[in-house]
Amino acid sequence: MEQVCQVPYSTGTGRHAGMLGARHARSLEWSPLRRERKARPSSFHRAGRATCPPRAGATMSTRPPTRPPGSVPAVLLGFQPALALTGALCLQQNLGSSSPGKKQSKENTITINCVTFPHPDTMPEQQLLKPTEWSYCDYFWADKKDPQGNGTVAGFELLLQKQLKGKQMQKEMSEFIRERIKIEEEYAKNLAKLSQNSLAAQEEGSLGEAWAQVKKSLADEAEVHLKFSAKLHSEVERPLMNFRENFKKDMKKCDHHIADLRKQLSSRYAAVEKARKALTERQRDLEMKTQQLEIKLSNKTEEDIKKARRKSTQAGDDLMRCVDLYNQAQSKWFEEMVTTTLELERLEVERVEMIRQHLCQYTQLRHETDMFNQSTVEPVDQLLRKVDPAKDRELWVREHKTGNIRPVDMEI
Amino acid sequence: MEQVCQVPYSTGTGRHAGMLGARHARSLEWSPLRRERKARPSSFHRAGRATCPPRAGATMSTRPPTRPPGSVPAVLLGFQPALALTGALCLQQNLGSSSPGKKQSKENTITINCVTFPHPDTMPEQQLLKPTEWSYCDYFWADKKDPQGNGTVAGFELLLQKQLKGKQMQKEMSEFIRERIKIEEEYAKNLAKLSQNSLAAQEEGSLGEAWAQVKKSLADEAEVHLKFSAKLHSEVERPLMNFRENFKKDMKKCDHHIADLRKQLSSRYAAVEKARKALTERQRDLEMKTQQLEIKLSNKTEEDIKKARRKSTQAGDDLMRCVDLYNQAQSKWFEEMVTTTLELERLEVERVEMIRQHLCQYTQLRHETDMFNQSTVEPVDQLLRKVDPAKDRELWVREHKTGNIRPVDMEI
Repeated sequence: MEQVCQVPYSTGTGRHAGMLGARHARSLEWSPLRRERKARPSSFHRAGRATCPPRAGATMSTRPPTRPPGSVPAVLLGFQPALALTGALCLQQNLGSSSPGKKQSKENTITINCVTFPHPDTMPEQQLLKPTEWSYCDYFWADKKDPQGNGTVAGFELLLQKQLKGKQMQKEMSEFIRERIKIEEEYAKNLAKLSQNSLAAQEEGSLGEAWAQVKKSLADEAEVHLKFSAKLHSEVERPLMNFRENFKKDMKKCDHHIADLRKQLSSRYAAVEKARKALTERQRDLEMKTQQLEIKLSNKTEEDIKKARRKSTQAGDDLMRCVDLYNQAQSKWFEEMVTTTLELERLEVERVEMIRQHLCQYTQLRHETDMFNQSTVEPVDQLLRKVDPAKDRELWVREHKTGNIRPVDMEI
Repeated sequence: MEQVCQVPYSTGTGRHAGMLGARHARSLEWSPLRRERKARPSSFHRAGRATCPPRAGATMSTRPPTRPPGSVPAVLLGFQPALALTGALCLQQNLGSSSPGKKQSKENTITINCVTFPHPDTMPEQQLLKPTEWSYCDYFWADKKDPQGNGTVAGFELLLQKQLKGKQMQKEMSEFIRERIKIEEEYAKNLAKLSQNSLAAQEEGSLGEAWAQVKKSLADEAEVHLKFSAKLHSEVERPLMNFRENFKKDMKKCDHHIADLRKQLSSRYAAVEKARKALTERQRDLEMKTQQLEIKLSNKTEEDIKKARRKSTQAGDDLMRCVDLYNQAQSKWFEEMVTTTLELERLEVERVEMIRQHLCQYTQLRHETDMFNQSTVEPVDQLLRKVDPAKDRELWVREHKTGNIRPVDMEI
């Protein structure tokens, strides 16, 4: 990388690189203004990136971004609802200390696992895309060392694992509710069975009626608990379980998509490295031939130098093209990362809200169950208030009396 | 019985019966006034009985009974509280149509299963002891034909069976509650077990807290149902079961006591029948000897007649004594019947009230259980209101973020 920044190269677009001495070559600097002319839309879309045109002190957070009409960042187009809720992304174009006048040193960027970051020593200040929201899209750019193995885990993988774990939790909650349903069904079954029991069925009168209602109330209670379990099933257990199904497929798609983009980034990075090596060789060849020219000037050498310069320029153009392709791939990955992490974030909010709502539904059903349960006792209380031992005795005596003529003394 | 009412007899207390011709003997009537002099307290106690001094149209219900001070009917002494509640026993001394001037015919009484009742044809009007109460003491004087066998069942037996059945009902209610307790215990056990389940235990943040409370609320519910079952045991099931234990013993005592009195009544009735036969024989002997005297007057016959008259008088005295003993036994039985049936009536009121109270306690406990159950949901609702996806994301991102430095374009 060091050499890349120290050597002259041509873009291969007709501009004349000219013949440069070695000392000039080292002092040749790549002008950011030249890069700007390429007008790659993707570089504009990447808000706040250090490659944006340097305008020291000018931030988008204090005045609206001077973007061409219709060029709303693509990654944000899909998230208008989210933006409406959480406030606009901060589109500050942070430039840090790398103003045009400053020296663009070799330490401007650092590439880790094929991803290029600003170099820590010369890093321009970056403001978060969504500064106050702890958004997924701001905190998972780096890979993480795998605590177990020696490899690394992509930041996006962590988010996916979080989502999958979340969905597992949701599934387990659904299973928990299922267990609760079973308990309710068992309870209802037992109450209904006991309600049918013939114990004390021969109790008579108003007490007998009250007792019959005590037994009936158990059937009512059973009914209440059965309804509770049925509603738990349709309004809590099933929705929690259903939501999960589509989700896993979507997550796998996301996973493959982002992984593919990372692979493309890797292969393009390899191409850059290869092109850089080729350029270095061509430059060395040109330098050698230039030195030979200074010692013994000949027509033949003049020709060789021309050829070597042409090859060096071509190698420079190749590298330029490879870097461009790499940056395009990185830009694509960047956009997909923002898009997808914001989507994951939205899904997680949705998941938490969804679970919260269904647990609220659970407590609502519990509440209703308690209320309906109360109502099963009322008819019992009513009949208990009507229990009248005197009336019961009258009923029984009327039916079973043997004779109301009292005995008298026997006469002689 | 016919002859008893038609023949003279001596009380054997020194009163002179005199020598009577056969035609006089048939017209001799037993004077109720003579009976009154005997002043048997028990006959007075039996309010409203036809053997009381006839006073046509004079009833105790319109004016207070002219009883000697302290001679409150023994059977009612034990029931002052009951009297206070239900009004005084009606102590009408119903005399019906048998005024002193009327002929005390042979159909005045009828003895069925050794119990003597006023004869239906000449029955004096009897007012009930407790006219408005359908009291046991008024309606079970006769025996009842056993619908299965050919024997009879005493009225008191029916009452005892009613009581025993009532206690059986109470026992069965207790058993029913026991079954309910088991169901509650099982339900509580299952809820507590599920509460300990680790499903979705890894859910994080405020949602994780709410979920943990959902699980904890099941333990709280379990606790509520355990308390319900414990209180059902101590405040409903056990009292219903305990009450029963002493009762059965008491009922057996009552049963034996009344049965013994009926046996005594039977044996004394047998003695009366025997004495009546003996008197009939003696009277026949005297009549025969008197006829012999009319035909052939002799000193020897005169002696025989004197002897026969003495024997007849003695047989009359015997019969008188037997009837007296019989009436005493019947009086004793009568008193015990009133005493015991009123006691059974009190016990039945007590039983109905007691069951009613404990079933009210059951509904109260059910009510409290529903209320306490409600309160187990409240902490869940509180935590569900605090669920905040943004806050949860912040917590998680703080802990798991990999890097917030965004990638930049690679430079040449």
